[in-house]
Amino acid sequence: MAYNEIFQYSIISALVDGVASHGTPIARILEHGDHGLGTFRNMVGEMIVLNGDVYQMKADGSVVHINPEETVTPFATVTRFKPTITKRAAVAGKASLERLLTGLFPKARNHFLVVRMDGVFKEVNVRTAGGQTTPREGMVSVCARQTTHTFKNAKGTIVGFRCPQYVMGVNVAGDHFHFIAEDRQQGGHILAFETDGDVDISAAQMSKFHLELPTEDDEFNEAELKLQAQDIKKVEG
Amino acid sequence: MAYNEIFQYSIISALVDGVASHGTPIARILEHGDHGLGTFRNMVGEMIVLNGDVYQMKADGSVVHINPEETVTPFATVTRFKPTITKRAAVAGKASLERLLTGLFPKARNHFLVVRMDGVFKEVNVRTAGGQTTPREGMVSVCARQTTHTFKNAKGTIVGFRCPQYVMGVNVAGDHFHFIAEDRQQGGHILAFETDGDVDISAAQMSKFHLELPTEDDEFNEAELKLQAQDIKKVEG
Repeated sequence: MAYNEIFQYSIISALVDGVASHGTPIARILEHGDHGLGTFRNMVGEMIVLNGDVYQMKADGSVVHINPEETVTPFATVTRFKPTITKRAAVAGKASLERLLTGLFPKARNHFLVVRMDGVFKEVNVRTAGGQTTPREGMVSVCARQTTHTFKNAKGTIVGFRCPQYVMGVNVAGDHFHFIAEDRQQGGHILAFETDGDVDISAAQMSKFHLELPTEDDEFNEAELKLQAQDIKKVEG
Repeated sequence: MAYNEIFQYSIISALVDGVASHGTPIARILEHGDHGLGTFRNMVGEMIVLNGDVYQMKADGSVVHINPEETVTPFATVTRFKPTITKRAAVAGKASLERLLTGLFPKARNHFLVVRMDGVFKEVNVRTAGGQTTPREGMVSVCARQTTHTFKNAKGTIVGFRCPQYVMGVNVAGDHFHFIAEDRQQGGHILAFETDGDVDISAAQMSKFHLELPTEDDEFNEAELKLQAQDIKKVEG
């Protein structure tokens, strides 16, 4: 796949409906990108893909470096990232990053963005989904038991996407950021963060979206995948 | 692109919002498929792509064979069609075709389908959008002035897609059929049809969806493309 095209396996509504027992080998996801987000079988932990390496950030706070040949994912979004804009700037927190992105890409209202941010974080608040307790348990229920962690003075990286409103249900509309520490020992889905110095932003606008749906997966085939915007906002917003 | 992958240029919500002044050359659409549906600049007429030929079915009842190098489209959906199921069957009308497809593809609830149906139609009712009267006029308003035609004892072909519920807004959820007569002199967006003999159905299930968004298009960039499911159902359902 060319640079800065977005590839996605399955849809977020499938997770909302608890479709997470199976998946596609992560090695196949990496054929389409080296930078992205996702989850793992049974929604155990948060996935980050950074420079082609895949990490599973677990609810107990540990981070596992994943062998992509041996692990499957029920949902992931990646791109072959080639920044078109790089910038060193002060970014106070999540809202500040969101405003900065909007300013950097004034014509991206209806497009996708990919972003990476490197720096020292005064504080990062993350959540991590611990996983389903039964098959087909939905994402809202899984995330009701999510673990949160606060990391202080953490050097690390944010990987994220901005998706247009009209893909809500297929992916998460709006901004979606995961964090991983430079030593790859801490991470999770970002709830909030704070920095007090300059950070390095790199980003690109994307206009091509490729979706691959699970096949031969009865759980996916049987799910009633209606648009569940409120549920998605609740856990991913 | 491989067989039976769905390729789409722009999104249906853009048409709802009246984004139809520009587009991509139809020749570029045909690189991704030889069978499909769409519209033309300013929503003038209905597009059908059949065996790689492109036709514009206009509100005055005429059908124009399009030169794909010289014409652009603001919205189109195509696939490189290779039927996985072919069947000769009695299909009384639109509801009957829809039931037949559901029966032929029991595991396609959350996937896409492509269909072609050839036969003699006792009656076909079609509508044709005549086009915008001003730039940015929305699809609901354009279709309020649509022309309808009834063709009797017409030999011809239906080209259509079934899209899963969760893509509503990106495309049209549910079934979407266009008709063109064998002599390529009549056609339109199907409202209803009736046959009394056997017809030939060919169809395939699709699990890969490729979306390309307009770039360098201020109209698209500025539109507020929210999910407008009710509006889409009103004119495309």
